[in-house]
Amino acid sequence: MTLFLGIDGGGTGCRAIVADATGAVLGTGSAGPSNIVSDPDGALASILAAAGAALGSHGRLDDLHAVLGLAGGNVAEAVETLVSRLPFASALVVNDGVTAVKGALGDDDGVMAAIGTGTIFAVQRAGQIREIGGWGFILGDEASGAWMGRRLLAMGLRAIDGFVPGTPFLDEIFAELGGAAQIVGAAPGMRPADFARLAPRILAAAEAGDPAARRVVDDSVAEVAAAIELLQGGETLPVVFLGGLGPLHAGRLKHRWPQQAALGGSVEGAVFMARRRHEAGLGR
Amino acid sequence: MTLFLGIDGGGTGCRAIVADATGAVLGTGSAGPSNIVSDPDGALASILAAAGAALGSHGRLDDLHAVLGLAGGNVAEAVETLVSRLPFASALVVNDGVTAVKGALGDDDGVMAAIGTGTIFAVQRAGQIREIGGWGFILGDEASGAWMGRRLLAMGLRAIDGFVPGTPFLDEIFAELGGAAQIVGAAPGMRPADFARLAPRILAAAEAGDPAARRVVDDSVAEVAAAIELLQGGETLPVVFLGGLGPLHAGRLKHRWPQQAALGGSVEGAVFMARRRHEAGLGR
Repeated sequence: MTLFLGIDGGGTGCRAIVADATGAVLGTGSAGPSNIVSDPDGALASILAAAGAALGSHGRLDDLHAVLGLAGGNVAEAVETLVSRLPFASALVVNDGVTAVKGALGDDDGVMAAIGTGTIFAVQRAGQIREIGGWGFILGDEASGAWMGRRLLAMGLRAIDGFVPGTPFLDEIFAELGGAAQIVGAAPGMRPADFARLAPRILAAAEAGDPAARRVVDDSVAEVAAAIELLQGGETLPVVFLGGLGPLHAGRLKHRWPQQAALGGSVEGAVFMARRRHEAGLGR
Repeated sequence: MTLFLGIDGGGTGCRAIVADATGAVLGTGSAGPSNIVSDPDGALASILAAAGAALGSHGRLDDLHAVLGLAGGNVAEAVETLVSRLPFASALVVNDGVTAVKGALGDDDGVMAAIGTGTIFAVQRAGQIREIGGWGFILGDEASGAWMGRRLLAMGLRAIDGFVPGTPFLDEIFAELGGAAQIVGAAPGMRPADFARLAPRILAAAEAGDPAARRVVDDSVAEVAAAIELLQGGETLPVVFLGGLGPLHAGRLKHRWPQQAALGGSVEGAVFMARRRHEAGLGR
């Protein structure tokens, strides 16, 4: 019996799909967080729970040829430890960016632009994937929701100092958050998701014409365009926009490159990779 | 007996000067951290220890008319609590930026540009002080040492992605810090001082001609120039440069505005304010 397992796992949860050789889905499962760097035991337990639920009574864990797309899937030591403990027939661990690309594009050439709390940009050409961005909130993730929120608050402080003009939306947000001293005091303890929570408000304010919000949105679109441009390298590959802010950028950049919808998500990409690996004679 | 106490306190320590009505220094003292927001009891103990050491046998604590320049001196609730517990004849708490300006300029009109791990920019006109910047590492402190270090690391990641050219200095720093994945993993736990530790290296590399380092230094100088320009409002008041990066900016901006040396530090500014307050009939 040859079955295929796709896993998509990270800090918030873990999802699994089991499929047969034709790609027909036999079952799905989900479980808790699977951060293989900060909690290897918990991650293993989550992965096995999700895989077991997806497998049901279709076979045994050692029938499964698995591909796991995991946050932290590029940390070699954590990956080696995990793989040595997995009961599957074969297992390949990759960064979740890779399974996201495969889920979005399958085998097709194209660009993936995932813009949510963070960002990932990647291009696939003849099955080869190149990822850029995604370096996190402190040093990267330009254009992300977290980046937009931080930028708006920083702009509000620059307005108080007199470097840039104040706007009604900046005043509104600063009043809501208790003023500059409160915001500055809270900032070191805020997580990326806290800053990203401002993004929908910024979009709405930009839509309504607030100059500060428009500036943040325009700068975000410019960053996304620059990343896609870099990955295109002069080509006009189709672009798949993902993430909570994907629709914004898809709309703003719709005349620039052809666009297509994602075939599936990261977990679908993982099970797709598992089948392709087996067809290619790998992982037996 | 009328004596004057100046206190300069913050997260790393607390310094005190006691002077008589002529400004003659009778004694100095120092003690541990005095963060009135995060540790009010510890801050009070440090302030009293430093004040007691400075006072020696010249009088009693309730002879002292005090001005305290404290980090967090703009947090109204923490200040009220502290003042109600101080044994001095009178006490005024201000933000340490204010005592730094008074220490640097005395009564003179001028601009203070303090650029170290963080930044403070301020102008004094006819005794009135206006402060800008100093909003902290996450949302502000443009041009600071921490800002320079973070910017250099972000630039190294942009170089890896192909947005900007790599340089020998970027390669050197990334190799020393264990590579991109290591740096990105460590970044969320790094404090401003950790990023600022790169600043002297960046200055040296810029001096030696590395394009990435030059870019960071040039951008920092441009931010400092913009802040001073804003505070000058078209005037050419003398500028006092302070902090570890003060000499860099003083050198790069030497033809732009007149410069002068600081009269003293923040603790000298505090005791100066205490004497002026008393002369003006305040705090009796």
